[in-house]
Order: sequence, then C-alpha cells, then structure tokens
Amino acid sequence: MKFMHYKSGSEVKLAVCCEDRIFDVAALGEKLPADFDELLKGGEEAVDAVAEALTNSETADKAEVTGEIVYAPAVPNPGKILCIGLNYYAHGKEIKMNIPETPTVFSKFNNTLAAHNDVIKLPREAFKFDYEAELVMVIGKKGKDIPQEEALSYVFGYTAGNDVSARDLQMLTGQWLIGKSCDGFAPIGPCVVTADEIEPQNLEIGSKVNGEITQLSNTSNMIFECAELISYISKYITLEPGDLIFTGTPSGVILGKPEGEQNWLKAGDEMEIFIEGIGSLKNKLA
Amino acid sequence: MKFMHYKSGSEVKLAVCCEDRIFDVAALGEKLPADFDELLKGGEEAVDAVAEALTNSETADKAEVTGEIVYAPAVPNPGKILCIGLNYYAHGKEIKMNIPETPTVFSKFNNTLAAHNDVIKLPREAFKFDYEAELVMVIGKKGKDIPQEEALSYVFGYTAGNDVSARDLQMLTGQWLIGKSCDGFAPIGPCVVTADEIEPQNLEIGSKVNGEITQLSNTSNMIFECAELISYISKYITLEPGDLIFTGTPSGVILGKPEGEQNWLKAGDEMEIFIEGIGSLKNKLA
Repeated sequence: MKFMHYKSGSEVKLAVCCEDRIFDVAALGEKLPADFDELLKGGEEAVDAVAEALTNSETADKAEVTGEIVYAPAVPNPGKILCIGLNYYAHGKEIKMNIPETPTVFSKFNNTLAAHNDVIKLPREAFKFDYEAELVMVIGKKGKDIPQEEALSYVFGYTAGNDVSARDLQMLTGQWLIGKSCDGFAPIGPCVVTADEIEPQNLEIGSKVNGEITQLSNTSNMIFECAELISYISKYITLEPGDLIFTGTPSGVILGKPEGEQNWLKAGDEMEIFIEGIGSLKNKLA
Repeated sequence: MKFMHYKSGSEVKLAVCCEDRIFDVAALGEKLPADFDELLKGGEEAVDAVAEALTNSETADKAEVTGEIVYAPAVPNPGKILCIGLNYYAHGKEIKMNIPETPTVFSKFNNTLAAHNDVIKLPREAFKFDYEAELVMVIGKKGKDIPQEEALSYVFGYTAGNDVSARDLQMLTGQWLIGKSCDGFAPIGPCVVTADEIEPQNLEIGSKVNGEITQLSNTSNMIFECAELISYISKYITLEPGDLIFTGTPSGVILGKPEGEQNWLKAGDEMEIFIEGIGSLKNKLA
C-alpha cells in the first residue's frame, strides 16, 4: 500500500494511492486511522483495514480525491530525522573519503521537511547547493537495542528523500548540520510504501536535474544496509514511530565533480529523485 | 518568574516557583495557560497573569504542590535542540581547537531530554563519558533572519543544561551526533527563568562532579553571544517557540585534561550544573 498526505485548505489529510487514484482515508470509513500517528499505531491491522475498505468500489468512489492534488510531506511530523553520510562505496570514493567502519550519523530538523512539488527557497548567504537521492526508512514502532535480524520489522515503510545540502555551509565547521538543515532541505515523498512491498537492498535509485540523469545506482551498493543502520542507531537512541532515517546517497553529486565542473544548483532548477517501487519526488528551487 | 514541570502520576504539569514554593499553574486559575505551549503563545501577558494570580494568597495556598516533587524536563517537548560547540575561549584552548570564525552547530534529539534529579542510564557500548555545563536559551516566538539587535526579544527564558557526551562515540566519525544524542544526554532544568530576570552574558556558570567543582566560568566568556547565535542560526533555520539552544560549555571538561588524568564519568557519579539566577541541575549516572 502507498500512503501519502495532501493539503485540503489549511488541513493536512492522510490518503492512500491505488492504481493512480488517491483516496481520503478518513472518508473510506469511520473506524480507519484518522491520521498517520494512528496508522503507525494500528500497524499491519490498520493497513489491512484500509485495503479492505478500498475493495468496496462505492465507498472508494466517494472517498476519491479529485482535482489538483497539493502534496504535503509524506510523513508530516517525524520525531527525528536521522541521516547517514558516506553510505555508498562509489560516493565515498568520489568525495575522497575512506570507507567508514561505523556509520556517520547526522541530523536535520523538521523545518527542512518539504513535499513533492514544493518549491524550495534557497537561503541567501550560501551558494554551493547540491542534491542527494536517498532511500528513507519510516520507523513503525518504538525500539532500543534492536538486533539486526529483527531490524526490518521496525520499518513501517519507505519513501524517497532528497538530502539537499549547501556544501559551503556544510563544510564551514566540522559539523555538517547548518548546511543540511536549512528550511526546506528535506523533501520526502511522494508517498510512503509499506515495507511488505519493498526489498530495501535491491532498488534502483537515482536523481535528475532539469530532466538529465545525475545519479544512478542501486541500494544494493550501500555500505551499511538498512537493518545494520537501525541496529546501530538503536544501541544509543530510542527509535519511535514516525522517525525517519535517510540512508545515504550514491555517487553523482555535484560535490564529487572536479572543481571546475561543479555547476551548483540554482534558483529555477528542478531536482528529481526516483526510487524503484516508490516513484519520483520533484522539487523546484527558488 | 520561574516555570518548571513536574510529574503527577502519568501527567506532566506546568508549575511556577516562587520563594521556594511550587504552584500548579492550572490550579491558579482557569484563564491561565494550561501548558507550556500556551504559556509561550501567551508571552508576557500570560506570564503577568500567572504573577497576578499568585498575589492572591488564598488561591496560591490551594494551588501549592506539596510532598515530594518529581521534576519533568524544564521544557517538555522542544521542536529542536540546537547546540553550539567551542563557544568559550578557554574551552577551545583546552581541547586544542582554534577560535572559530563561525559558530559550530550540532544537535540532539528529544530522546536526550531528562529532568532535574533524573538518573541517566549510560549506554553499554561507550565509556568516555563527560559533562558540559551550558546556558540554554528557550525560544519564545517564531523567527527567521532575526537581526542581532532584536534577537534577545525572541528568548522566552533561560535554563541550565548538561550537554552529556560520550567522547569515544562523538569522535568515532567526523559527526558528533551519536555521542551527543544517547538517551538522557540532555538534562535541562530545574526551571526556566523568564528573560526579564536574566542578563545572559553575565552569569556565573559551572559544574561539579560528586560535589567537587569541575568547571567555573562566566557567560561573559562566550565567543559568540546569545544574540549572535540566534541571529546566525535564523539565517538558515526558522526558529519556533519551544526550541532550545545550548550555548556551549566553558573549560574544565574531562576531554580537556591530559590523557593520563582523564577520569571519565561512571555509574554512581553525580553531576551538577549551576548557573547564577537559575539554580542547580543534578543528575546521577547509572
């Protein structure tokens, strides 16, 4: 199943996508989860209930959302946005870093959240803007000290993310945060695909800028796999439903190019992140 | 005014401290802020209303919280925990870092929040535990691109914080997060003192371990003052009511000692952070 959020006036509503149609979950039935928190709490059972409601074509027709869809971030209010640096072999090589022995973990704040189709306003006092296509895990249940073998059962679903980065700010001090956490620097979406439909270490992943492919790889090239990341992080940090883990980006970012060929992103550019089984996440810069 | 939170069964309640007595704000009057979010939203007017209610001694007596107080984190659910590294001259020197030209910004997640008197359980796979006494700003209103001259008007109040750090995890990769964001690694409290009572660049600040002074300085020794920090961060990150900014620690941390003399914190130790006008924040390790 594919879940998403859309804007209806000032409200953000939970929806489910099915065969290119979009359905308001609340309108599908009273006993269904009213929002994403409830969906996570309800887990598999809640997902099944939504699927069941969709089989009634009369109910479904009534709940269909028509007209122009204004997307909201695929996960509306995560408690944490964890990010992994240097997690693809070829990306480590292009930015001249050694293969790490432990995951490099950093973070973004919720001011960075943006939705599919959102226009991202670049900050004035920075100029080396770059994209990063990333598979994003959406945690489904609370956990600490999670064994690697059980780790994937803690994932509710997966979405596509763009770890937008201002490289000049990122490298200004030793800590990357300020260059990673500008307003709008974490578009996610368009939807969250439930874990049962995704084989997380075997997905084509890539990005385009203004329609031209810039990154193209497969999640099988990750240094630390999704299960390892969850297990590692949860040794120290209690994970909660709704937490996001950006799993790192493949090679092909602008930072990896020779100095004269670094054509940093600028206002007017359109970024696209595509991941097999999830879809395309598009954002323009302003 | 000094605001705090305490636990009453499974509930966390907003209280106000006055002359060593503690009063349940909700019990002081129906029109007063029901929780910290409402207090921030109400701003100065809400603070004044609480002060006014306290002048009625009959109402106050009824609202007094008696018996053993179980503290909750001074700010219950911040949207962001921003932290500044290397922000005191002598601390920069002790850890052999150059004086920075821009603030080093990193973060903690809300899993790190702990209250005055909470026992902090150390993670198993780490051992170089250290304390850091810090003045913590509590943001009172939303802001972006805040000019330095106006910055302090965005501060609702100040509290004491301990930026507990696992130095071995912090230095494992270039990014400090995992060593800074273990569960319970950000005790704050005991209370939030409203900005009108605090001169933020002229406060004695220090820490003790097992009753012996380990850090002793003054916030006048900050490299980047509170107003500069707010102005800098808000160029890139929209600040929201309830956001916390840990403003960095003075010299005297264990990391700053010669290698043979680094007696890392261990289970059983009691840490205390003291800041003039705010009070003492105590936490035991387990």
